[in-house]
Amino acid sequence: MYAITLPSFGGPEVLTWAEVGDPSCGPGEVVIDVAASAVNRADIMQRQGHYPPPPGASEIPGLECSGVISGVGEGVTGWSVGDEVCALLAGGGYAERVNVPTVQVFPRPGRLDLVAAAGLPEVTCTVWSNLVMRAGLAAGDTLLVHGGSSGIGTMAIQIAGLVGATVFVTVGSQTKRDFCLELGAGAAINYREESFVEQITTLTDGRGVDVILDNMGAAYLGGNVSALAPDGRLVIIGMQGGRKGELDMGALLAKRGSVHGTGLRGRPVEGSSGKGAVVAAVREHVWPAVESGQIRPIIDRMLPMTQAAEAHRVVESSTHIGKVLLAVPR
Amino acid sequence: MYAITLPSFGGPEVLTWAEVGDPSCGPGEVVIDVAASAVNRADIMQRQGHYPPPPGASEIPGLECSGVISGVGEGVTGWSVGDEVCALLAGGGYAERVNVPTVQVFPRPGRLDLVAAAGLPEVTCTVWSNLVMRAGLAAGDTLLVHGGSSGIGTMAIQIAGLVGATVFVTVGSQTKRDFCLELGAGAAINYREESFVEQITTLTDGRGVDVILDNMGAAYLGGNVSALAPDGRLVIIGMQGGRKGELDMGALLAKRGSVHGTGLRGRPVEGSSGKGAVVAAVREHVWPAVESGQIRPIIDRMLPMTQAAEAHRVVESSTHIGKVLLAVPR
Repeated sequence: MYAITLPSFGGPEVLTWAEVGDPSCGPGEVVIDVAASAVNRADIMQRQGHYPPPPGASEIPGLECSGVISGVGEGVTGWSVGDEVCALLAGGGYAERVNVPTVQVFPRPGRLDLVAAAGLPEVTCTVWSNLVMRAGLAAGDTLLVHGGSSGIGTMAIQIAGLVGATVFVTVGSQTKRDFCLELGAGAAINYREESFVEQITTLTDGRGVDVILDNMGAAYLGGNVSALAPDGRLVIIGMQGGRKGELDMGALLAKRGSVHGTGLRGRPVEGSSGKGAVVAAVREHVWPAVESGQIRPIIDRMLPMTQAAEAHRVVESSTHIGKVLLAVPR
Repeated sequence: MYAITLPSFGGPEVLTWAEVGDPSCGPGEVVIDVAASAVNRADIMQRQGHYPPPPGASEIPGLECSGVISGVGEGVTGWSVGDEVCALLAGGGYAERVNVPTVQVFPRPGRLDLVAAAGLPEVTCTVWSNLVMRAGLAAGDTLLVHGGSSGIGTMAIQIAGLVGATVFVTVGSQTKRDFCLELGAGAAINYREESFVEQITTLTDGRGVDVILDNMGAAYLGGNVSALAPDGRLVIIGMQGGRKGELDMGALLAKRGSVHGTGLRGRPVEGSSGKGAVVAAVREHVWPAVESGQIRPIIDRMLPMTQAAEAHRVVESSTHIGKVLLAVPR
């Protein structure tokens, strides 16, 4: 098969569409003929050499895909060749075929075409596992999402609505601001023009927010702790603003707050917080809302997978809104 | 009545046994004729002027007491004048009498004398609320407790045993080490001689511990994050080593860890993590083990309340093991 390979680490230009060996189908796994994958920040870090795949995972980038099952491994029940699906992957999505444990597979939602379904697994699983399973986001809570127009941000806005939380976001432009408000955000703070700490203070009458979903790490650590409400939870899933920052434990203790560093890719398949448990929870709680149209993947654009380099440039420029998909050429 | 007052902030010598007004008994409260109170680190910080009482709390120090109910407020059921009790307080324990909401009152355990019961409320509530309710400590988990011979440490060792967790502690002397091992610690690390990070790595075959209970704040932040297992929870309840420290979010994300700054005194009476909920959980889960003798308060010494200054000197010297009690002179 063909796949995107990394002959060396570096800029987008190192992404190379090349012939590689087919994946094998282990016990409990299926092989998917990939229709599309999608670009995640982790792919960019992996391309730069900063984020090696976890042990046992494919060296090919790509943390999610949609497609059609073309092979079924030993002991698999409930899935058959020909089923249209999407899946959460530990890697290997930028390829014509990929193998995956069935506990990480979703049925294609009826109202989405197969390519669009590739925009769902990573954002729904990231948002649900971190905001609901980890941080306990619940009805009546207030939530701040940094990067509200990203793939994760646009899904966090929708899932906050699903659970009955009020969501505020930060954005970097007026266009993104308008989009997030339209999607359901209660307020969108342009971080280039306003202090998010001051704005959150005003929006919450000085109380702060119950939960924060952060992708900036060190750059926002102090501000995020300041913006937390009593018993608030700061969930850090990215470190685009640096990995080491000063934590004021006095401020954290005074509000009984918590700081969580989490992620999805490194989780084991099994276990109560493993990928299988996350996918099962998303199928139970989020998939019905996708089927009903209440939640949808926000797609910025779809490019042929052979143009993965261009797709990475788009995501690195941060001019996109939602997901950038990569469709396998047929 | 007489109580310990703070005519000024400063060293132990400012603690002054003086006549003050009697407490009033509000709706839902009882008045307790105090038999004994106990010294907590928070009292020392309050004496130094670094820890003002929360809004509405007494200016008199003392976060726990035992005694006999001498007054019952409007709407109180289930408690009567003459009942022997102990109680978690927001302040006011260093006194002949104190008022307290009944949701913060415990019955005196049958096998303990009334003075000894003063050593239970703060340590049982702190350990249960932080380790079990907040950090989810459960059977099979590993736990590291810094300051294993303190009042909180000696109770954490026993409660870890009650829930079926394996507990390791740090201590500052061979005497304290022996005491903690005798009490049930799986290992006791002398921090003056050994690196706790290295010892925990060895003790857990490189995995780290599931939960850490920390009283050192900044001084141990980096080491604590290093010593956490995947999905580990660091619970900071004291900052004896400073309040601001560098947090390596990269390390935290890699293990999906969390850092919690918590405390008991600032919690509201009501609510799912309020003092009433904590006391109810401790009555349900810990009190039966006190009644059976499986858990006991570790008492270093008992001094007359008029000698509160000497009691503070003992606690500040860190030569004690367990609780230092203050008995009201009769």
